[in-house]
Amino acid sequence: MGIISDPLMRLHYFVILICFSFTQIWAARPLPSWNDGNSRSAIVAFVERTCTDGSPDFVPREQRIAVFDNDGCLWSEQPMYFQAIYAFDRVKALAPQHPDWKDKDPFKSVLEGDVKSALAGGHQSLGELIMATHSGMTVEEFRASVRNWLASARHPRTSRPYNEMVFQPMLELLEYLRAHGFKTFIVSGGGTDFLRVFAEDTYGIPPEQVVGTSLKAEYQVREGKPVIVKLPEINFIDDKEGKPVGIHQHIGRRPIFAAGNSDGDFEMLEWTMAGAGPRFGLLIHHTDAEREWAYDRDSHVGKLARGLDEADQRGWLIVDMKRDWKTVYPR
Amino acid sequence: MGIISDPLMRLHYFVILICFSFTQIWAARPLPSWNDGNSRSAIVAFVERTCTDGSPDFVPREQRIAVFDNDGCLWSEQPMYFQAIYAFDRVKALAPQHPDWKDKDPFKSVLEGDVKSALAGGHQSLGELIMATHSGMTVEEFRASVRNWLASARHPRTSRPYNEMVFQPMLELLEYLRAHGFKTFIVSGGGTDFLRVFAEDTYGIPPEQVVGTSLKAEYQVREGKPVIVKLPEINFIDDKEGKPVGIHQHIGRRPIFAAGNSDGDFEMLEWTMAGAGPRFGLLIHHTDAEREWAYDRDSHVGKLARGLDEADQRGWLIVDMKRDWKTVYPR
Repeated sequence: MGIISDPLMRLHYFVILICFSFTQIWAARPLPSWNDGNSRSAIVAFVERTCTDGSPDFVPREQRIAVFDNDGCLWSEQPMYFQAIYAFDRVKALAPQHPDWKDKDPFKSVLEGDVKSALAGGHQSLGELIMATHSGMTVEEFRASVRNWLASARHPRTSRPYNEMVFQPMLELLEYLRAHGFKTFIVSGGGTDFLRVFAEDTYGIPPEQVVGTSLKAEYQVREGKPVIVKLPEINFIDDKEGKPVGIHQHIGRRPIFAAGNSDGDFEMLEWTMAGAGPRFGLLIHHTDAEREWAYDRDSHVGKLARGLDEADQRGWLIVDMKRDWKTVYPR
Repeated sequence: MGIISDPLMRLHYFVILICFSFTQIWAARPLPSWNDGNSRSAIVAFVERTCTDGSPDFVPREQRIAVFDNDGCLWSEQPMYFQAIYAFDRVKALAPQHPDWKDKDPFKSVLEGDVKSALAGGHQSLGELIMATHSGMTVEEFRASVRNWLASARHPRTSRPYNEMVFQPMLELLEYLRAHGFKTFIVSGGGTDFLRVFAEDTYGIPPEQVVGTSLKAEYQVREGKPVIVKLPEINFIDDKEGKPVGIHQHIGRRPIFAAGNSDGDFEMLEWTMAGAGPRFGLLIHHTDAEREWAYDRDSHVGKLARGLDEADQRGWLIVDMKRDWKTVYPR
């Protein structure tokens, strides 16, 4: 390149040079909230060998599908799933319209603030609470209700809005993968419609990339105005062996990267890792009672036992929250 | 900008200028296989007013969702749905393993080459044929079977492979929308897994953007190897009032552009057009007996009656294949 004599041109080149340098610095330091160590370097090494042109493990862009569980993987799930807390709050708000609830469990226990009794019936109790609070309205009405709840409800321990109890290192991981051409999906046991209310703003994941548990829905035209109504009937349960099925039905190709935190994610990781070519599976291990929570084998949510036992032999990474993360929540 | 004295710099600017000029020429002539006229200009005007920064009708990129029916909208559907022809061909191929079929309708009629009798039982007959040929195998086995069929089967009238009986003007429309930041989806009554085999190569639509009719599926681990098996049970029928539901469950936001060709697409267009802000709905009218087929109200496939009757009052565009398209199939 010859001598650049024009001052404006010199300025242009200078600006380009500065931008380029920042890009290099950024590229050299991905995942800033991850401590240096095996977890961080394993992720970076995987992304570099799959996304660098000419690498023997190069994966074409359209196959770079990454799936993430939500509860306990992208945000906290204690003292119980946040969506269950939403359901409890809705039961309280809707109680005046349902006088029978005060004598009928699990509603009675919820109204009396007795969470333990409310959930004593296990999945069936939770199912009843979900049906009563997640169906019988249009999709738009449901969205507005969740949006209002997120804006006003606060976590009992941190006093944060629930959608600020997301994991900063995981936000960085999502962004890092997308910057390398990955398409990021949520694959969650939680409700698709619930997740979609905040997934785009919070995680950068658009509604069409959210795969979750869903209720059936019905198209109706009410006085000339079409609506979609949520019905009190399960459509699909996106948990355990349901996760690879949800991935198949919704995404239609096998991910090459999967992140979870509980045995509910076992089959998703198993399915992801069983494909040909380079693959990455990770499980978040909740080891940080001080900054978040510490739980695994005996937890009532996010139980992790088989995953811990088999991760090593299967080549899955166990991320130790306490050891591997500089910060947990965004500041 | 001062005088550019360096010859290399001059060359750079020249190259940029040339590229820019080509971009302008390209931008000035979208949809080359569409004749000049109301249909083409209505589409172009819509894309320009929704995608131009500063336009009062500007739509943010993430909301630019466009949905397309497949049979009769992106490819032909005569003398019958191509997927039904695949099912017929599979019945013939599988017959030796099913000796009972030669005495049992609808299989018997298929094996005798009597299409009319085979389909006399309507949806139920077709359903039986689909179940027998689309389930009981892994997803990978099914894909391989469809791939082989597309590679070898030929259309009875044109002798073309079925995936070359796609509409050139619609390929251009898909590409034109994507070039303006639209995300393009197939929303079809046809099978999701069937469509995904060719949608990416043929239409540039990745598997995760195909919404169709589906069977239930099951995750199994066979001798340590995980597979997903297609079950003989309907999961979802993506037709008529099912289309807005499929769009909701899969995409999670209302499209702003919808294209179909039959009354099976009516609710999809109705749902799309009922949202706030600028919207576009179009129906392909098959008017070209010479280059393709001519049919509407009385057709056994792709029946179009209500759509024709109400398009005007609803502000939907009727595309007249004979009048509006310079060519039908790619050369």
